[in-house]
Amino acid sequence: MKLVRYGEPGAERPAILDAQGVLRDLSGIVPDIGGATLLPEGLAKIAALDLAALPAVEGTPRIGACVGQVGKFICVGLNYTDHAAESGMAIPDEPVLFMKTTSCIVGPNDDVEIPRGSEKTDWEVELGIVIGKTAKYVSKEDAYDHVAGYCVINDVSERHFQLERGGQWDKGKGCDTFGPIGPWLVTTDEITDPHVLDMWLEVDGKRYQNGSTRTMIFDVPTIVSYVSQFMSLQPGDIISTGTPPGVGLGQKPPVYLKAGQTMRLAISGLGEQQQTTVAAA
Amino acid sequence: MKLVRYGEPGAERPAILDAQGVLRDLSGIVPDIGGATLLPEGLAKIAALDLAALPAVEGTPRIGACVGQVGKFICVGLNYTDHAAESGMAIPDEPVLFMKTTSCIVGPNDDVEIPRGSEKTDWEVELGIVIGKTAKYVSKEDAYDHVAGYCVINDVSERHFQLERGGQWDKGKGCDTFGPIGPWLVTTDEITDPHVLDMWLEVDGKRYQNGSTRTMIFDVPTIVSYVSQFMSLQPGDIISTGTPPGVGLGQKPPVYLKAGQTMRLAISGLGEQQQTTVAAA
Repeated sequence: MKLVRYGEPGAERPAILDAQGVLRDLSGIVPDIGGATLLPEGLAKIAALDLAALPAVEGTPRIGACVGQVGKFICVGLNYTDHAAESGMAIPDEPVLFMKTTSCIVGPNDDVEIPRGSEKTDWEVELGIVIGKTAKYVSKEDAYDHVAGYCVINDVSERHFQLERGGQWDKGKGCDTFGPIGPWLVTTDEITDPHVLDMWLEVDGKRYQNGSTRTMIFDVPTIVSYVSQFMSLQPGDIISTGTPPGVGLGQKPPVYLKAGQTMRLAISGLGEQQQTTVAAA
Repeated sequence: MKLVRYGEPGAERPAILDAQGVLRDLSGIVPDIGGATLLPEGLAKIAALDLAALPAVEGTPRIGACVGQVGKFICVGLNYTDHAAESGMAIPDEPVLFMKTTSCIVGPNDDVEIPRGSEKTDWEVELGIVIGKTAKYVSKEDAYDHVAGYCVINDVSERHFQLERGGQWDKGKGCDTFGPIGPWLVTTDEITDPHVLDMWLEVDGKRYQNGSTRTMIFDVPTIVSYVSQFMSLQPGDIISTGTPPGVGLGQKPPVYLKAGQTMRLAISGLGEQQQTTVAAA
């Protein structure tokens, strides 16, 4: 299933994309795409619906982040061998974790702000894992039972804030609009193997990232199990799994975003995002 | 005002402590201590009440975290000169920021879990700032306008997870139960100067931390202004402002928590916490 949230920011409504590409409203069925809706029984309820009987969404509304009420937005750093190399950092022995703020989450096609004073705003196309069932001390073997699905994430990052302003990456990861998520939450019935997905990102039509989840260092069950050793995960939590090579920081010389540019990014089966960069007000 | 949340975990009700020490239920007035209730107009509504007319809470219910619906739980690291020294780290030029998970938040007297495999679970008494109005790019001069009040926080930390498991402190800061908050959210009318507060922490009756917010490196308005340059803050967000000397890591040799111990901690005017440590299930 491809689950969607549409409508104005803060007032998104749940929907599902049917096989004909028609958006069908789920407001009468579930309150949101998030929280309890993502539990196995919640997804089963949606899966049992006759989509043709649901109201078709009219027009071309804004698409919101595909998950609402996100409690935690956790990220794995340096999870692609080549990206670690281009960042000048060692391949980690175990997953590097950091956090993005939930207040940075926006829709897949919303504007991305260049923060005040930023000279190093950068992009990162990433596979997002959406948690569907509480996970605490889960094994790799059981990890998939706790995954509702996957989505595209642009882990927008300010490298100066992240790396040169005193300790801890979080400072450059959670600026407003730094977390475009969606367009779809694609459930695990459609993405049976998340480790064979092509992914790319372009800025103003130039392709910078061209990778595949095949080259992830730590795979999805390893990540879910690992994170659950350090914190419990709840339905609607999101784990962004790291980016392949081709970020701005890795260019020679580095290339960073300016206001007025366009990012396009996609992961096969998970849809496409497009953002325009704007100066933070 | 001293605002309180009481009742079972996940079902806390709002209340206020009156001048006689009686807990008065606010359920009929506001939905929660959190979100819009913390806006200036929300607090003004509570301030205008005749507390004697509110129902007194019977018995001795569990006290929950004093803020509900917390969106972000941000921390300042190494914000006391002597604590930086005992941690063997340099005094930072600008605030070090990291994040705790919102899923680690518990009541002030709830049990604290020693995570599986942990040998270095540590304590940190800290002054918490509770945001009362959206803050983005606010100046130091305007920062207090965005503060609803203050509370006691125990920034429980697993030092091995934090410092020795590969990058980024977040890994050792967000384990379940690592964020006791409360007992009270004390509003700014009662705490007109947050930089003159004594604070202490004891483990099994032995006083390890004995400090004062007088020795903070970056003060409250500096912190609020600073954080707001990197992310917007919303009502109910919490910033924990760092700990004075005396953490377990700083003892010679280091001392860490084991299951079955008791932590007591307090900040003058903000109340006292008491937690029992237990092994994570």
